[in-house]
Amino acid sequence: MNLRKVCIVGIGETKFGKSMDRSITDLANEACIAAIRDAGVSHKKIQIATGAYAAQWNGPAGQYFALPQVILREIGITKIPMLRVEDGCATGSVAFRDIWYRIATGEYDIGLAFGMEKMNAADSSSIRGQISDHDSEGESELGLTAATIYGMMANRMMYQYGMTREDLARVVVKNRRFGSMNPNAQFRDAVTIEEVLNARMISDPLTLFMCCGRGDGATACILMDEKTARQYTDHPIYVAANVLTSGSYDDASDYVTFESDVVAAKQAYEMAGVGPDDIDVAELHDSFAPAELKHYEDLGFCGRGESIRMIRDGETDLGGKIVVNTSGGLLSKGHIIGATGISQINYLVRQLRDESGPRQVAGAKVALQHNSGGFIHNEFCACAMNILTR
Amino acid sequence: MNLRKVCIVGIGETKFGKSMDRSITDLANEACIAAIRDAGVSHKKIQIATGAYAAQWNGPAGQYFALPQVILREIGITKIPMLRVEDGCATGSVAFRDIWYRIATGEYDIGLAFGMEKMNAADSSSIRGQISDHDSEGESELGLTAATIYGMMANRMMYQYGMTREDLARVVVKNRRFGSMNPNAQFRDAVTIEEVLNARMISDPLTLFMCCGRGDGATACILMDEKTARQYTDHPIYVAANVLTSGSYDDASDYVTFESDVVAAKQAYEMAGVGPDDIDVAELHDSFAPAELKHYEDLGFCGRGESIRMIRDGETDLGGKIVVNTSGGLLSKGHIIGATGISQINYLVRQLRDESGPRQVAGAKVALQHNSGGFIHNEFCACAMNILTR
Repeated sequence: MNLRKVCIVGIGETKFGKSMDRSITDLANEACIAAIRDAGVSHKKIQIATGAYAAQWNGPAGQYFALPQVILREIGITKIPMLRVEDGCATGSVAFRDIWYRIATGEYDIGLAFGMEKMNAADSSSIRGQISDHDSEGESELGLTAATIYGMMANRMMYQYGMTREDLARVVVKNRRFGSMNPNAQFRDAVTIEEVLNARMISDPLTLFMCCGRGDGATACILMDEKTARQYTDHPIYVAANVLTSGSYDDASDYVTFESDVVAAKQAYEMAGVGPDDIDVAELHDSFAPAELKHYEDLGFCGRGESIRMIRDGETDLGGKIVVNTSGGLLSKGHIIGATGISQINYLVRQLRDESGPRQVAGAKVALQHNSGGFIHNEFCACAMNILTR
Repeated sequence: MNLRKVCIVGIGETKFGKSMDRSITDLANEACIAAIRDAGVSHKKIQIATGAYAAQWNGPAGQYFALPQVILREIGITKIPMLRVEDGCATGSVAFRDIWYRIATGEYDIGLAFGMEKMNAADSSSIRGQISDHDSEGESELGLTAATIYGMMANRMMYQYGMTREDLARVVVKNRRFGSMNPNAQFRDAVTIEEVLNARMISDPLTLFMCCGRGDGATACILMDEKTARQYTDHPIYVAANVLTSGSYDDASDYVTFESDVVAAKQAYEMAGVGPDDIDVAELHDSFAPAELKHYEDLGFCGRGESIRMIRDGETDLGGKIVVNTSGGLLSKGHIIGATGISQINYLVRQLRDESGPRQVAGAKVALQHNSGGFIHNEFCACAMNILTR
């Protein structure tokens, strides 16, 4: 199978936050229009579109049918193949993956991937259903929510590697400092280690600031094959690797490593022909502070147990070896399920374009995006990853 | 782009109906295991899986994250790429399309497409939300539900072509007779024209029997590239064409033709190298009786306005020119959103395998599947189509 080189030519997104006064169509349209304008392409040239939408917290009124069609007809995009995809927290990334593959295989030359969520529109019964009643699957009824799983992860890393509560706080301080410099982030206040440690306890040892928030927002990007991309831009960003894996709950029973992440990284490095030492900048799925540290290890940024040293020594901060979550991460932006994956990609595109202002990683050439999927008992059950190059 | 030939090697499904005592995982597992057994393949050989699930009527408790992983871990399928897709009423077909394309392009050799729904598990608020409150999109608030749209279609066809209420009833009588011979159908009683016409009025001229029911159930199929398929079966069924289109509401304002269907048929015939005269048997999206008649015309089975003659003359019944909905159609099986598309395909596979008993179309060689997508105001906004050959 010969895959064509695929490039990201346009990116766009809304602010992330609370948007009770705007419809999900309105939010998604803003992101799609921004991406189309950024690419400098006519919307009539778009040949395929895939929308990411988890609808997890949107309540009955948000359980759309064929939402991509509903959204895109508003901006004049009709009559092309469209569908909606979902893969837990990796929902955004699988829309990107779908469009990437259709272009890489030569079926289409120009495609639109977009993702959106209005999580603040949820009614309480919807959230309660999500958290407590997963049909016949029993783990969540036993208390295994995302926060408790990551709490156990943190406890295990403290026991096994000597990680401290301050190390967890360091992740938050770094990411919220980046978030304070990102006008589109939801939480714009930088925080101190003391503030993080003294915040309300959610799932010991995780305090409020160590847990990502939810929110409303949308993201979009325009992909093209390399030849077409060159007609629209002199600085296309290449998708050097795209992988999707799933893992098994049973294989991760000590919670300090996710097999799906390890396998995805191995596959992505091989596909891109790079190693972790080549990565300049990364967006990693920091839904909870300990997750970011675990990712450093699963993705080979360091050895087992060495993530503590990395965060203490600032190796993932500006000026460090691999700068992680310069967007502010999920901890600053909020995890807006359908939008997150493409948001991570878009911030890396800005890094590779040298457009990240005070958050810019000087000379960034290779970027890695990592988006975890699944929920609660199957929290570990998906990993979407992209390696991007300029 | 060179696409490999892709074959359907295994099919499986549950009975369609009311299953309040079984989880959606249980239903989907039954269908997947049946397809795996029918293919004679080990579940460990499956390299990719895509699940179809609309979750439209499942209520808060049914708003799963990453449902394919939740379901497939129960039967030992883990660590492979999985995602969920949705495209309105065409949801099942887009899962099939995803697996078909990944195999056709040579990325994988063996894949699983499956779809499921537990629509009877819905709470009333979920259904109310679906019908009445579509965020800021206003058509449904104006009364444009599926039943009213198809009611208008029927009225227009009566006005324009001289169609009668009896013609609509003839579609139901034909499909329910087939359904009475299908042990997996939800509604097993054959009906008479009088019974159909005298049933409760839903949306004039559509009576209860002219509208499909909802239900619980699951379907699955195993796809392989031709070379691999030959290791498992001597009678693979080939996917000769697979297309997905979307259409515009504005282009179908008289409701007697859907542009998405016309375009999909054109593309599918071209891809398969056949014409409507070559089709022996078809499963068409008969969510409402007039839809089936409209499809005859949009798909070129006859000219404009001639569908009335076709149904009167039995041209789409056993012994006719193109036998339509030998499964009993949605009017007998119920429209179990995530399951419908693959169910249509599976019944055509049985026809091409000469395994349809009293419903068998003698010597069937070429089959067409047609699955409409979208909902309410964007009812016309997707068409998934497959042409299958033996």
